[in-house]
Parts: sequence; C-alpha cells; structure tokens
Amino acid sequence: MKVLAVLSGGMDSTCALYKAMKEGHEIVKAVAFDYGSKHNKQEHKYAKQTCEKLDIPFKVINLDFSEFESDLLISGGDIPEGHYADPNMKKTVVPFRNGIMLAFSTGIAESCGAEAIMLGNHFGDHAVYPDCRKDFVEAMSQAMTLGTYEKIKLYAPFTEITKTDIAVLGDKLGVDWSLTYSCYNGRDKHCGKCGTCVERIEAFHDGKVNDPTEYE
Amino acid sequence: MKVLAVLSGGMDSTCALYKAMKEGHEIVKAVAFDYGSKHNKQEHKYAKQTCEKLDIPFKVINLDFSEFESDLLISGGDIPEGHYADPNMKKTVVPFRNGIMLAFSTGIAESCGAEAIMLGNHFGDHAVYPDCRKDFVEAMSQAMTLGTYEKIKLYAPFTEITKTDIAVLGDKLGVDWSLTYSCYNGRDKHCGKCGTCVERIEAFHDGKVNDPTEYE
Repeated sequence: MKVLAVLSGGMDSTCALYKAMKEGHEIVKAVAFDYGSKHNKQEHKYAKQTCEKLDIPFKVINLDFSEFESDLLISGGDIPEGHYADPNMKKTVVPFRNGIMLAFSTGIAESCGAEAIMLGNHFGDHAVYPDCRKDFVEAMSQAMTLGTYEKIKLYAPFTEITKTDIAVLGDKLGVDWSLTYSCYNGRDKHCGKCGTCVERIEAFHDGKVNDPTEYE
Repeated sequence: MKVLAVLSGGMDSTCALYKAMKEGHEIVKAVAFDYGSKHNKQEHKYAKQTCEKLDIPFKVINLDFSEFESDLLISGGDIPEGHYADPNMKKTVVPFRNGIMLAFSTGIAESCGAEAIMLGNHFGDHAVYPDCRKDFVEAMSQAMTLGTYEKIKLYAPFTEITKTDIAVLGDKLGVDWSLTYSCYNGRDKHCGKCGTCVERIEAFHDGKVNDPTEYE
C-alpha cells in the first residue's frame, strides 16, 4: 500500500513508520505539522533525521493556530507537571488536532497518489483526547474514504495498544529511540517532568527497554 | 445555538449565514480559509464586507497548501471554461477541502465556545466534489461530534437543495448579492465563463432573481 505518514517525531509515529515499512508498505512521503506548539520545532528535527536515515521525503506543514487555545501552544500558559492521564493535562489539549492533521493529510494523499494515511495514535491517549478514541478514528476514517476520489484509508495500528507495547514493539523493529522526542516543553533536553516525559519514562521502564534519553 | 460560520464570501455560505441569523442562532465568529487559490483574496474581501454589515467578527486563516495539486490554486494551471458539472471541472477540485475546513473549524469552535459549524455546501456540488456529498457530510459530522469535548455539531442547511434554490431563498432573506463573489479566476470582475460563474448566472436566471453582478 502507498502510505503518507504523519510523523511528529515522537515515539508513537516513529514506531508506526518502522512497522509500516516492515510490513512492506511504500512510504510516499512523511509530513509533520507545525501548529505553533512549544515542542514542534524540536520534535520535527528528530522526525527529519529519522526520514533521512530511512530515505523518506519529509515535509513540515505550517498551520495557523492563532485562533486556538491550549497550553501546549507557544501562545498558551506553562506546561503542567505530572502524569499524562492527570486531569490538568487537559490544558495541553489542542482541540481536534488529530482530526485536522488527518483531514490535511487526506488532501495531500490525493495529490501525491498515496492510498492510506498513517497515524500513530495509541490507546493511552484515550483518557485525555477525544480525537484519539476508537469511535472517532472509525468515523474519521469513513469520512476520509467517502470524501475522496481514491477512497483514502486510515492506517492507525496502535489504536488499541499502549505506549509500553509500542516501546517493546519498536525495540524489536530496531527503532532508533535517540531520534525521537516527546517533551512538551520543547527545550534541547527532555525535562523529565511533564506528562509526556513521564509517559515516555514509564513506557521504557515498564517495557524493560533501554532508554537512551538524557533528561534535564 | 452558538455557531462558527465558515464563510468563503460566495453565494452559498453568505446565504447560509443569513439563514442561521434569521433562525436566531448566535454567530460567534466567521472564518475564511486562504489556501492559495486564485480567488481567495477576492472572495474574502466580500466575506469581510458582509461581516462588517452584519456585525460579526471575521478572521482569515492562512493554510499552507503547497503540497496540493489543483488548477484552482495559484500554483496550478488555467481555470477551465464551461459548465460547473463538466468533467474538466475536476481539475479545479482541491482534494478534501471541505474536510480540512470542517476539521480546522471544529478545533476553533472548541476554543471559542461555539456549539456548531455552519457550512454552505449544496446539492449541485455533489457531481464533482466527493467531500460535499451527504454520506461524507454525515460521517464527518459524526467525527466532529465524537472527537470533541463539547460534541460540536454541523449545520449544513443546503446539502439537499440546489444553487437556484439558494438564490431564491437568499432573495427572501434579503442577502446582498453584490457582496458575494464566485469567479474562480479571482480578477476584479467576474469572468462570466468559468464553471462557478456559469453556475452563478444560471442560479439567478433560473430562480428569477435579479443578478447585480458585473461580468467581464
């Protein structure tokens, strides 16, 4: 299958990319979306390096999120510390972000001849993000197929597995975790304290996978 | 209902806006998307004037469509002449444009407290655009509701009526047609020959509505 990959540069999408390639899919292109978050620039540096390593064309798409409110954005407040599933993480939600990235990618897929969109959303996202849950993913997938000439499909292999599962799977697939970035604060080193850092640390720890990350 | 209006500045969305207001909905904000088409700048000038007249906040969102192929875009070829439903109009399709505008608006709606998104798609769009058809609109509407905290709804009142019906309805609602723009070529005056100009002329003519447009 010809696949357009949505590649943020985090663990999930990077692992999904390795999995898609392992399954023999042709990755036509990888795209990342810069929506003005504190960490987009950092994570996209790593996404670019992964694509160079795997010889995949990579493009960053800039989106104007000036009408959006979220502490994840440069325009928002401080990133909360704590666990990824904590209620205060809701402040870092960027409303309908997956819906927007999927819709945008669907249009690009029709333009570049891809048959499917790869998205790395996983089960652990469900607590906080309505646009990561299975029922949303199914409805959006149907909208993508019905709204396109080429009946674009969704390839979201991690909807029902956890981040720990992803760490274990990625390790088997040979993912270079040092070329992935998770921290919501977006500084050079991972802070080790924000929700996504805590989730990253837990995934490596619980999956008994070596964590190459240098935390602040 | 608090409504976020997707307002291109064409006949359909302008009429939908008047209809929503007539029905007593509160228009929180109107947004237009500049995706690099030949006619975005022109149509948005009119959308802005309509919003000033109706006292509605208006914002243009710039989107990076550099990865898209379509003759509608500045980056594409010449706009074909002929009828809107002709096969050669397919060259002007911007893949999944409605999906993208709806997804983006859904995120903005969650940020600004709107409960529904208004979209002016109509039955006559169905021939050419898969992302205007009823089955797409229904699936996308479901994705929007499932993927948001506030269960954002879709208000698309024209999915089953024609552009001629819109001309007739708008006339009753007091729409100022001189503040709407349709031409795909995007010059000061409507060309009168492209698919959307031909469709505009037909709608006014068939609906026996006075057409204030000056054609080249």
